[in-house]
Amino acid sequence: MSPARVTSDARGWIIPIGGAEDKISAVEILRRFAELAGGEKARIAIIPTASTQGDTGARYENLFRGLKVADATALPYLQRSDATRPEWMTMLQEATGIFLTGGNQLRLSTILGGTEVARTIRRLNAGGVHVAGTSAGAAILCEHMIAFGKEGSTPHAGAVSLAPGFGMTNRVVIDQHFRQRDRLGRLLSALAYNPFAIGLGLDEDTAAFIDPDDSLEVVGSGAITLVDVSKLTHSSMAQASEADPICMIGVQLHILTNGSTYDMRSRTAKPPLTIEKEAP
Amino acid sequence: MSPARVTSDARGWIIPIGGAEDKISAVEILRRFAELAGGEKARIAIIPTASTQGDTGARYENLFRGLKVADATALPYLQRSDATRPEWMTMLQEATGIFLTGGNQLRLSTILGGTEVARTIRRLNAGGVHVAGTSAGAAILCEHMIAFGKEGSTPHAGAVSLAPGFGMTNRVVIDQHFRQRDRLGRLLSALAYNPFAIGLGLDEDTAAFIDPDDSLEVVGSGAITLVDVSKLTHSSMAQASEADPICMIGVQLHILTNGSTYDMRSRTAKPPLTIEKEAP
Repeated sequence: MSPARVTSDARGWIIPIGGAEDKISAVEILRRFAELAGGEKARIAIIPTASTQGDTGARYENLFRGLKVADATALPYLQRSDATRPEWMTMLQEATGIFLTGGNQLRLSTILGGTEVARTIRRLNAGGVHVAGTSAGAAILCEHMIAFGKEGSTPHAGAVSLAPGFGMTNRVVIDQHFRQRDRLGRLLSALAYNPFAIGLGLDEDTAAFIDPDDSLEVVGSGAITLVDVSKLTHSSMAQASEADPICMIGVQLHILTNGSTYDMRSRTAKPPLTIEKEAP
Repeated sequence: MSPARVTSDARGWIIPIGGAEDKISAVEILRRFAELAGGEKARIAIIPTASTQGDTGARYENLFRGLKVADATALPYLQRSDATRPEWMTMLQEATGIFLTGGNQLRLSTILGGTEVARTIRRLNAGGVHVAGTSAGAAILCEHMIAFGKEGSTPHAGAVSLAPGFGMTNRVVIDQHFRQRDRLGRLLSALAYNPFAIGLGLDEDTAAFIDPDDSLEVVGSGAITLVDVSKLTHSSMAQASEADPICMIGVQLHILTNGSTYDMRSRTAKPPLTIEKEAP
């Protein structure tokens, strides 16, 4: 099936959110997503499968309806046999935006992986439908998903376990609750295995709005720690035993805040546009 | 970058080998690969990066030259900076077949991952060049690579660690030395994370010749244990703690021997064609 190709203007946006996005004051991230999906014409399909809390779907239905979208409906896939429900498939196929809630990303991969639902989400995104996910819903967006791991800022062998995600993009590996849960080490460990991807460490209430040309803009109150290993000259992951620290030479980091952009093709970061203040 | 697409007649063959292929008697697997790559006109680029033994490249050079190919040259990439050597890149680009030796698959991913060499191998395969790999060289062929794991026939949480491979295909997850090292459990564990791929457990001296249409033929003295999880109704991987056994309902297995075929699109297995023997 590889290598992966998408024509540059066809794919929908991919919007990973670091979890705990603001839901009560400005609601900036969810609002931007709803606008992108069509605003008053937006039809949002909410997939609360990652969560074991029964009210997660209804909560996001209310949030999106409060943002005046045309429709917001939760599709509570809870077991693999749910994936064949025809009325839910119809709603999914009519969506202009798909939102994956938080919870446990392995619930998403084990319940929906390999089903027509996962294939449809991927196909819809390739055809222009925007897909956002928060926390576990962010992790599942990429091809190589961080399933679980250990805290700490130094990479270690065994610090991270990867599993296949939904594969909307294989250009990034995503981690979330990044600053809040001290996850630089596990993101570096994931990249040390095969330094071909870009690491996106998303703080809470912070999102990467990735456009069809693979440029991203940061939206939110925290930061994105962007890890570029394209200049890596050494990774010791092949020689390391369990719990050994990993030697990595040549990692580049960018800490990107609200309004910053990053072009993943040219690997160029730009700070937020600022209006110059005159000296008083 | 996803979803992945390749026109059906353009891609080269992908040939994972389970390790310890016959090198002294019929040399069936390597001979079939050399013929596919052009026989007397074949130019084989050998990548011995997985191995730490200095003579691995030379050994395969001699083997392929003994099969009367036009050229067989080892490109001993040993560190990331080797990936930019222009004379080796020229040889790689002129190859009609690429052969990845055994060793440690994490040497391949850490030394070549994210480099122009990995991208070139993937692009050449997408354009029609055949790529074979044995043992570690087989593992690296797929998008989701088994990096390491534990022995045993029952799937367990933590029994397997995945890492990104070279991504010639994401349709399969490959394991090797399969019967010899009792690896059904770790292959099942890999599939339990996200049951979208097909598992290929390759015995030693046994290869899957995967054609551009994703049909495979088995060649060799052992078997391929093909694991189809498309009908899986349950995986408990999301609920399991480290070392817990994993519940999987609805796994289909095919044990395929020399001459058997499997169509990965229709998921249809066929036994070897046999000539009916008349009763004596």
